Amino acid sequence: MDEFDLIDRLIAPLATAPGAQGLANDGATLVPGAGCELVITKDMMAEGVHFLHDDPPDQIARKLLRVNLSDLAAMGARPLGYLLGLASDGSRDESWFRAFFDGLRCDQDLFGVSLLGGDTIASPNGLLTLSLTAFGEVDLGQSLVRTGARPDDLVAVTGTIGDAALGLRAIRRELSDLNGDHLAFLSDRYRLPQPRTQLGPALVGFAHAAMDISDGLVADATHLASRSHVAIDLDWVRIPLSAGCQAALDHDPTLQQVILGGGDDYELLFTFAPDSLNEIEGMAGECGVAVTVIGTCRSGEGVHVIDPKGRQLRLSEAGWRHRS
Amino acid sequence: MDEFDLIDRLIAPLATAPGAQGLANDGATLVPGAGCELVITKDMMAEGVHFLHDDPPDQIARKLLRVNLSDLAAMGARPLGYLLGLASDGSRDESWFRAFFDGLRCDQDLFGVSLLGGDTIASPNGLLTLSLTAFGEVDLGQSLVRTGARPDDLVAVTGTIGDAALGLRAIRRELSDLNGDHLAFLSDRYRLPQPRTQLGPALVGFAHAAMDISDGLVADATHLASRSHVAIDLDWVRIPLSAGCQAALDHDPTLQQVILGGGDDYELLFTFAPDSLNEIEGMAGECGVAVTVIGTCRSGEGVHVIDPKGRQLRLSEAGWRHRS
Repeated sequence: MDEFDLIDRLIAPLATAPGAQGLANDGATLVPGAGCELVITKDMMAEGVHFLHDDPPDQIARKLLRVNLSDLAAMGARPLGYLLGLASDGSRDESWFRAFFDGLRCDQDLFGVSLLGGDTIASPNGLLTLSLTAFGEVDLGQSLVRTGARPDDLVAVTGTIGDAALGLRAIRRELSDLNGDHLAFLSDRYRLPQPRTQLGPALVGFAHAAMDISDGLVADATHLASRSHVAIDLDWVRIPLSAGCQAALDHDPTLQQVILGGGDDYELLFTFAPDSLNEIEGMAGECGVAVTVIGTCRSGEGVHVIDPKGRQLRLSEAGWRHRS
Repeated sequence: MDEFDLIDRLIAPLATAPGAQGLANDGATLVPGAGCELVITKDMMAEGVHFLHDDPPDQIARKLLRVNLSDLAAMGARPLGYLLGLASDGSRDESWFRAFFDGLRCDQDLFGVSLLGGDTIASPNGLLTLSLTAFGEVDLGQSLVRTGARPDDLVAVTGTIGDAALGLRAIRRELSDLNGDHLAFLSDRYRLPQPRTQLGPALVGFAHAAMDISDGLVADATHLASRSHVAIDLDWVRIPLSAGCQAALDHDPTLQQVILGGGDDYELLFTFAPDSLNEIEGMAGECGVAVTVIGTCRSGEGVHVIDPKGRQLRLSEAGWRHRS
């Protein structure tokens, strides 16, 4: 399938926004709404690192879009559109690309975004490299940042933590003790993140600091604590775990380190004043997203995970060295 | 050199715009000036296709930025900033990256843009893949497009044509008859495009259609003619050639096909009403950019290159199959 066909038959139909100009020009145009600024973010994915050759192409595409939408959500931005970059060696056939772009179409409808343009290039190395730039909008000067956490803030997360890191192990057949439903749930959580695109914008004006969890809960909380010049205490027992995650942990308690240190959750981590709790829980309910308070901020530095007996958990190095 | 060092020491210092937020958050913010819209474009480059392993890293970086700035210029947009994506296997050392980012710093100063963010990922394949998204601004609804050419418009180009395609041959030692100055000039034109970032925005309100020449003069003129539903007649003798290009052509007349069909010129191709010629020449003079009228539009379709005897040149297929 040559570049002509790829663009005309599979890519151009995704360029639904007027600013995409039917992919006919050297670029696209984009204007934020009145009183808004754009939020822009770019995440890449490489075959052999972020996905495997035989992964379902629609899920590769949707994960690529969703990890970027998750960044927008973490900044409090409503998603608008995206540019796609695709470096491919030509070994993939039309059915592969059709499934890939069907995946994007599905998520475009789900999240209300349009392809705005991009680039497709030949890559001589036999491996696919993907790049996506996503655009959102937020009221001028209101984007959520990592720097605003204050002592006495509550610390909360959306959804459940650790599923994706365990899902990767499930895909690698390293969690053989789990039942099929749990394995499928965890694998799906790895392959298909759920960006919190409704709750993120709703947190504007309430959250003091926010980010998405991509490197692992402890690593990312450490980034947030460091940027905000606060310490964060997390209660291990309050960290929300899915049934599949809990089952895996029951079989192998050492997976606690994976849950705290593994990445790819793409849940929101945020802090806020205690008197905002009711409003935030109300908004979370409206968005259909679970929000769980898992800790507090205080003066000091670092992240400390406390077990039920009040002891500080020792964390493996792995959870601390990643970086988004 | 790990990702930490790379970001802190080499990348973060390039994030000079306030909206980059010191690369501390999940994305950057950007707001076009009052009455303006954003123009966005994304071009990728892959080792082994768009550059070679041993090419000077600063020139790889600058070319990556410049090909994107050229797209902005073709849309009439003033450049603002960019996101950088870098997929690397870790085989490059600190001095390589230092030179790469020094190249970007140099061009940031030259073109008045800031790094706004991006992503660095591991790539397992031993080859570098680069992605850049550039942002510019233009008065609302005034971006230049490929669709507006009208019968009786004049067709013009900036600079000289064919240098880059011959430069690639010079680098491959396929132009042995040329003197050293000409070889160096042509090689430089291949490695370091000159995006027309001042003239492009100046053409807003004058040019009826515009694009940059990346696939080759005839191929790109064909795109423009097709999108505008006009025919374009080009006079071979009016196409501006550099001294190096002319010398190569004198040695080997078959290079005419390379000049017309080769890519990577990154000059502007645009059309306008004949009574705008004086003003456009005046603006080109102010920008220090040569503008040469090379043809006209008329009703019909296709691109026709006419020799001094009024005969239509036959063009090789190669010049027609590329696509930006």
